[in-house]
Amino acid sequence: MRVGVIGGGQLARMMVPPAIELGIELRVLAEIEGSSAGIAASAVGDYRDAATVLGFAADVDVVTFDHEHVPQPVLAALVAAGIPVRPGPEALAVAQDKLHMRAELSALGAPVPAWAAVHDAAELGDFIAAHGGAAVVKTPRGGYDGKGVRVVRSADGADDWFAAVDEHAAGGALLAEELVEFRRELAQLVARRPSGETAAWPLVETVQRDGVCAEVFAPAPDGGALADEAHELATSIAAGLDVTGVLAVELFETTDGRLLVNELAMRPHNTGHWTIDGAVTSQFEQHLRAVLDLPLGDPSPLAPWSVMVNVLGGPAGATMPDRYPEALAAQPGVKVHFYGKESRPGRKVGHVTAVGDDLGDATSRARAAAGFFQT
Amino acid sequence: MRVGVIGGGQLARMMVPPAIELGIELRVLAEIEGSSAGIAASAVGDYRDAATVLGFAADVDVVTFDHEHVPQPVLAALVAAGIPVRPGPEALAVAQDKLHMRAELSALGAPVPAWAAVHDAAELGDFIAAHGGAAVVKTPRGGYDGKGVRVVRSADGADDWFAAVDEHAAGGALLAEELVEFRRELAQLVARRPSGETAAWPLVETVQRDGVCAEVFAPAPDGGALADEAHELATSIAAGLDVTGVLAVELFETTDGRLLVNELAMRPHNTGHWTIDGAVTSQFEQHLRAVLDLPLGDPSPLAPWSVMVNVLGGPAGATMPDRYPEALAAQPGVKVHFYGKESRPGRKVGHVTAVGDDLGDATSRARAAAGFFQT
Repeated sequence: MRVGVIGGGQLARMMVPPAIELGIELRVLAEIEGSSAGIAASAVGDYRDAATVLGFAADVDVVTFDHEHVPQPVLAALVAAGIPVRPGPEALAVAQDKLHMRAELSALGAPVPAWAAVHDAAELGDFIAAHGGAAVVKTPRGGYDGKGVRVVRSADGADDWFAAVDEHAAGGALLAEELVEFRRELAQLVARRPSGETAAWPLVETVQRDGVCAEVFAPAPDGGALADEAHELATSIAAGLDVTGVLAVELFETTDGRLLVNELAMRPHNTGHWTIDGAVTSQFEQHLRAVLDLPLGDPSPLAPWSVMVNVLGGPAGATMPDRYPEALAAQPGVKVHFYGKESRPGRKVGHVTAVGDDLGDATSRARAAAGFFQT
Repeated sequence: MRVGVIGGGQLARMMVPPAIELGIELRVLAEIEGSSAGIAASAVGDYRDAATVLGFAADVDVVTFDHEHVPQPVLAALVAAGIPVRPGPEALAVAQDKLHMRAELSALGAPVPAWAAVHDAAELGDFIAAHGGAAVVKTPRGGYDGKGVRVVRSADGADDWFAAVDEHAAGGALLAEELVEFRRELAQLVARRPSGETAAWPLVETVQRDGVCAEVFAPAPDGGALADEAHELATSIAAGLDVTGVLAVELFETTDGRLLVNELAMRPHNTGHWTIDGAVTSQFEQHLRAVLDLPLGDPSPLAPWSVMVNVLGGPAGATMPDRYPEALAAQPGVKVHFYGKESRPGRKVGHVTAVGDDLGDATSRARAAAGFFQT
């Protein structure tokens, strides 16, 4: 069993441990030498180059991804060569373009914020006027971790982006969405294999800071009926878009108690990192099982509560391991994950997870451990 | 942080996942190409050759082991070169020679079976006569998994071994032990770092078949006061022998309720594999932390019960992954570990672990999963 992963970031890195345990041979096409997934990097090259990717994929059983940025022509070349690509190009196309995503979700009947494709300042102005004087504007492509997302309150608030999308010949449109009043953000992760079997982890609550995932509480406190609703929603989206592997559905819980789909990701996701330590089957193991079309594992939690805290930036002038003597001594029960990256402001360099019977205690422990590693 | 592991078996392999999570660079000196720990094998060579081992160890922070067979002159060369070796040569010497082990344990006051060094059939005959008509005879060196262990009831029962130890100039002695009447076998694992900190996992019950670990139940059912006694015993042995890393103390629970030390191992041990899935800190992560002199992790169990079942031999004409479609479908909650080895009669090719609230249920599930992989 050989799985080829395109992209050498921390998501590929975190696929390595379950691959070793299950005896799956993992091969990674990394962008650079010394990548986060370097231990499994069997090739270094440009994922935008079809010849490079075809060469890398020649003797794997399936190709999957650390990110969603592989261009459609490259994906088409893999399919033409008879190499299974999971998730497939059509599903990935939905994750690659936020206008396409909104259109597909609307077609599936999934609850989404009011949205429109806006081609110029006038159309954006109309949208703002019709939606309470504000809009969230998103570039359809290339955004992540809050990049390419902006709240605007006037028609000229996205002029620079209009110029840019026009240049890139992406149809010249931006995505405008209503500014949702939400109580909190949630995420529902589900895995789906080609044969159709799905497995959903518990709904989680996520806390974003500056557009980046900061903390995750699993399961979402007081999830109640929302948990069932989110579970059904994510499962139906996975089936509707024919997603294989892990699908992350980022959700708003509105102030009036509704769920709205914010974003989709078709790969293991930051909001699922808690599953490494807190679930019977982690999202990384499940992703591998799913893309290999193996039976899925039990997604049940191992304890009543898991709390994950991201480490952003990392310790000044040091890497996370430099702080292990103090951090591990203070928090012997917290699981520490370092991505093998140098510290840089705002960069995700690792995360910590605390698992336990009490939410407050797990939260305190996870935050205390993360505190040792923050700038 | 770089750890060099001598030996490329499954124990080295299972150190790789926690090394990746913690960002520890693991380097393995494997005996052969395509070893179980191949993904981390940075060198292939003979661990009995000092030049090979010194070259391998030149740029690691500490050297540790997949097995206890590295010769003392090679260990001495590492120490002379200023390379930390953990566990150290003196501790390893105890694990390398069962006569030495018995002598050291007796000196520490640890409870052991009645024993003697016997140099010929006459001495063995005397021992047998003095101990109820039977003896367990062991070759002092090189035994594992029941090899080098024999029950004899007559003075000539070990003549072939006397000839062999004489040839190998090992003093010409064999170890004779009383045949202990035991209720069951137990194992107590503890980790110790150079600074002296220790952490003990729960006492476990082990079931051996043909001298090989077959099943482990964690914690040992009805452990009661034995658990505290075993914990203290293993901790005092670790300190007394200055062991660093994981120490496994294999124990007999006698029919009259005493604990006797059967064997010691100074490395992660088969009876601790359940900790990968069933404890906050696995024995593999803890071993790495200990040999790096990092603070130890919480050894608490994640659930009331964990049951590990070894896969011996493996599926006929296949490897474990060939059976994943049926096995994973039938037992979605059981954690499957494959060591990347070809099946061969009696060979340990993997293990499975089930974790849960009910011992009977976990046992059934683990056995059922293992059943798919047995010859």
